[in-house]
Amino acid sequence: MESILPELQKTSREAAKLRRAPHSQRAGVLTHLAGLLTENVALILAENRKDLERMDREDPKYDRLLLNEARIHALADSLREVSRLEDPAGKVLLEKTLPNGLLLKKVTTPMGVVGTIFESRPNVTIDVAALCLLSGNAAVLKGGKEADYSNRAFVQLIHRALRENGLPEEVVLLLPTDRKFMTELLQADRYVDLIIPRGSQGLISFVRENSRIPTIETGAGVCHVYVEKTADLAMAAEIIVNAKASRPSVCNSLDCVILDAAVAPELIPGLKAGFEKYAIEVFADEASLPYFREADFRVQPARAEDFGKEWLDFKLSVKTVNSPDEALDHIREYSSRHSEAIVTRDPELAQRFLEEVDAAAVYHNASTRFTDGGEFGLGAEIGISTQKLHARGPFALEKLVTEKWVVTGDGQVRW
Amino acid sequence: MESILPELQKTSREAAKLRRAPHSQRAGVLTHLAGLLTENVALILAENRKDLERMDREDPKYDRLLLNEARIHALADSLREVSRLEDPAGKVLLEKTLPNGLLLKKVTTPMGVVGTIFESRPNVTIDVAALCLLSGNAAVLKGGKEADYSNRAFVQLIHRALRENGLPEEVVLLLPTDRKFMTELLQADRYVDLIIPRGSQGLISFVRENSRIPTIETGAGVCHVYVEKTADLAMAAEIIVNAKASRPSVCNSLDCVILDAAVAPELIPGLKAGFEKYAIEVFADEASLPYFREADFRVQPARAEDFGKEWLDFKLSVKTVNSPDEALDHIREYSSRHSEAIVTRDPELAQRFLEEVDAAAVYHNASTRFTDGGEFGLGAEIGISTQKLHARGPFALEKLVTEKWVVTGDGQVRW
Repeated sequence: MESILPELQKTSREAAKLRRAPHSQRAGVLTHLAGLLTENVALILAENRKDLERMDREDPKYDRLLLNEARIHALADSLREVSRLEDPAGKVLLEKTLPNGLLLKKVTTPMGVVGTIFESRPNVTIDVAALCLLSGNAAVLKGGKEADYSNRAFVQLIHRALRENGLPEEVVLLLPTDRKFMTELLQADRYVDLIIPRGSQGLISFVRENSRIPTIETGAGVCHVYVEKTADLAMAAEIIVNAKASRPSVCNSLDCVILDAAVAPELIPGLKAGFEKYAIEVFADEASLPYFREADFRVQPARAEDFGKEWLDFKLSVKTVNSPDEALDHIREYSSRHSEAIVTRDPELAQRFLEEVDAAAVYHNASTRFTDGGEFGLGAEIGISTQKLHARGPFALEKLVTEKWVVTGDGQVRW
Repeated sequence: MESILPELQKTSREAAKLRRAPHSQRAGVLTHLAGLLTENVALILAENRKDLERMDREDPKYDRLLLNEARIHALADSLREVSRLEDPAGKVLLEKTLPNGLLLKKVTTPMGVVGTIFESRPNVTIDVAALCLLSGNAAVLKGGKEADYSNRAFVQLIHRALRENGLPEEVVLLLPTDRKFMTELLQADRYVDLIIPRGSQGLISFVRENSRIPTIETGAGVCHVYVEKTADLAMAAEIIVNAKASRPSVCNSLDCVILDAAVAPELIPGLKAGFEKYAIEVFADEASLPYFREADFRVQPARAEDFGKEWLDFKLSVKTVNSPDEALDHIREYSSRHSEAIVTRDPELAQRFLEEVDAAAVYHNASTRFTDGGEFGLGAEIGISTQKLHARGPFALEKLVTEKWVVTGDGQVRW
């Protein structure tokens, strides 16, 4: 294949039919697809095996690639759940009759064509196609090479579900995995309206640097917990251990503890049990280092680069401050604006923190680990955005739409 | 000055104070500034004269640069109006208590620091600063060289109004006009959250190509009016003449008439009077050309490049179609997704057009010239966006905010 532009153009054109299809028809595709998945387990597993054979069983990605009957049934269930979600398109945001008699409406409408670039997991093919179709969007998918047989098998079934429900196949397009098509996709701003990169920071940076199409990325999470001097220290310790150790490799995990100098002598020994249980390594600043050493933690002096760092591991840095101003300054300097928490009993300080800290999610007396579409009750999460335009924090279906002004008149003109 | 980064950093830091200031305090700055403008007319006009002296009186920009007592009073009035607008920040979009007891709120919060790059008119300095301050945003302004004395005079007064109302001056920053600082600004994504370029297509393209900061641009308007075969032709003629001739140089003016072959013999003669009055030149396709020639219009055969062209002049192209499908195809191909209109008596076709056409504003039986924040009743318009993320069509204050998730707990953790 020389170029994917002709395919992208077709998808863009057919997206109009999808936009006009009733919600029930689109939801019907999903429930139909759920059935096709469960009826075609053998076929899916056979194709998946072709991918697995090319990978080393010891590779951590092997488990992400692997499909089995249970996982396929879970996908089918998830499709049925998504089919029951509320349509984010077609909502009337504003409606009024202007003095000149024009009827003005601002409505939500599907974004159009959503391109998702992802790695490893073939289930993303199903998840993303489902969310796009439910919200009236065409889906362009660029998956990882390693899951290509599996992805193609899924898309074959998606195409069948579309056809058998009277919708054009072209509204879900799986691109070839060649790297050259990635750049073509990212430049095709005439045909694709939104890009969602899901994967490593390397992928996300590449997309950000090379895309002409607006993107919503799941950004890095350099997260802080600030233990203020009036904090309940037992609560603080629980939050800190949880936010670091429950899933260190995700974006909402804790990276740096900021503590008021006054709480160090009591808080730090209180962290010992949890830090030992999870073998958490500490990179402590000068003021807190002696306390960690005295209580025999795994600790080293923090270097400059240990602040503002997303560890993605059982490690964290510690910064001592002497005032809330210093804590806020540190967060302003080092935060990636993902999730930030304060533990305090002072309600005014809590309020100040929640208002002043510039992040997608701000917490008072709770773990940063709640920054998640599922936890927030959003339905099927697409990503966690750290940008400020359009989507911020965990986002789902409701961000796959844009707005449109619809004006109905009877001949009005404006001179 | 070597670099504007230290200034941008200060502005970013002080923006937090602005975010926390009550709405009334921010509105107070605007009413105070209105008073300062009217008390300092002589000073403003003296500085404005320094700019005017450097420009040729015959230059079309001269009038845009010129300030006088009436214009200054109008600015003061407009400041008072903006001060009465509803604060878009601090709105609760979602509020619920989760099963685990966490109180979850999604709120609107100021974008942070908004950078506006503009040309010619010094009043933009006041307009933009006002809208930013009212919505809790710091404003970074990069104006045109030709208006520098005037802009500085305005900013001096803005700083006085801020100081005298207990807010830091740094929240409104006027940058030096040197070109090199433009690029520095566009790369400063750590300090500036949003860029709004207002000016020529050249400026907008430069910003789009070079900005690391999200932008909302006022895009080109290649607009169509589709006269369907059941249309009221007298209405169609009025709409066409109005949409072309009322203000040809703005983005919502008509560029191309699409007409059903069936209406050509009657519609075209009906356009004669209006087209003659405004000396409108027609670039007609093969099918419509004979009708224009017969009725003695100023007409030429349309070339390929006459479609998809934003004329910004008393010129338009004409495309004949034989079905709504062809009309929609043409719009899909050539539209810049700004404003598109259909004139028809067929309600189902109108509905189809309004749903399928992908544009910021779609019209049934009205002129495209209504795409305007004032016309839509939005208060003070900032621009007309043709992009799909965050803002689409005319946008105002409500788009100078982002969202933020605020979570209050009593120690909840997530394992």
